[in-house]
Amino acid sequence: MLKMIFDRWDGSIKNCDTLVNSLTDEQLQKEIAPGKNRGVYLLGHLIAVHDDMLVFLDMGERQYPEMHKTFIDSPDKAVEQIPSAKELRERWSKQCNELKQKFASLQPEQWLEKHTAVSAEDFAKEPHRNKLNIILTRTTHLTYHTGQLALLK
Amino acid sequence: MLKMIFDRWDGSIKNCDTLVNSLTDEQLQKEIAPGKNRGVYLLGHLIAVHDDMLVFLDMGERQYPEMHKTFIDSPDKAVEQIPSAKELRERWSKQCNELKQKFASLQPEQWLEKHTAVSAEDFAKEPHRNKLNIILTRTTHLTYHTGQLALLK
Repeated sequence: MLKMIFDRWDGSIKNCDTLVNSLTDEQLQKEIAPGKNRGVYLLGHLIAVHDDMLVFLDMGERQYPEMHKTFIDSPDKAVEQIPSAKELRERWSKQCNELKQKFASLQPEQWLEKHTAVSAEDFAKEPHRNKLNIILTRTTHLTYHTGQLALLK
Repeated sequence: MLKMIFDRWDGSIKNCDTLVNSLTDEQLQKEIAPGKNRGVYLLGHLIAVHDDMLVFLDMGERQYPEMHKTFIDSPDKAVEQIPSAKELRERWSKQCNELKQKFASLQPEQWLEKHTAVSAEDFAKEPHRNKLNIILTRTTHLTYHTGQLALLK
């Protein structure tokens, strides 16, 4: 069961990574559709959301705390200065590797422990709100935006 | 674990359904981005892929066998005559309900049985290629295209 869910996470990360690597910096600067988010914003958004996973999974501090404000709290173009496509690519690659290592360090039973955003009381009633569920919900979030980034090709 | 995966499927179906209901027929006729798939094609594609699930899950015949050719084998605009937005909406709603009922009829342990596209021999080596995995992979497929349909708003 763990393998199924991590296969889906790993496969979705790989698909997105392959896609991002196939796009030029110029393509990433474009809007995915007229008036919609730019590729760079979506890439930054994914990095910020995956950075938050560290906190939910109790795996340490965010690596890029300032990205939460720019890429989650704010819509695209609300913040003038955002990291370059080159910088975002570097963070993305580094983060994918780091998450992979951190995820591999947990024992199977630890994935069934509660994540940090649910209280012990609620967790007793809803044991499916575990760490593994964070992986699952972020996988569908990732594929949602990968479908959008694919339009830049 | 089953609950986690079905929560994700149900939630993703609901998100897509709410989105489709919020779009007009006219919006569904538009391309999600210049030169890309139209909303009606993506909706038809989702129905066709979910119709195929019945076969993979050994739950009966396809309801719309002709849709496979139009919405999976062929790209958008390759087939001239496709069902109207109204017709597609009806099929989508009906299908969502039918799948929900069919999925509810399976016992938990049956979800861990092999799906029909894997041989008994391969399944012995790779037991994660079970029916539940069909739900999981189609959930990420669904969210990928929901992210695209959302651009029509």
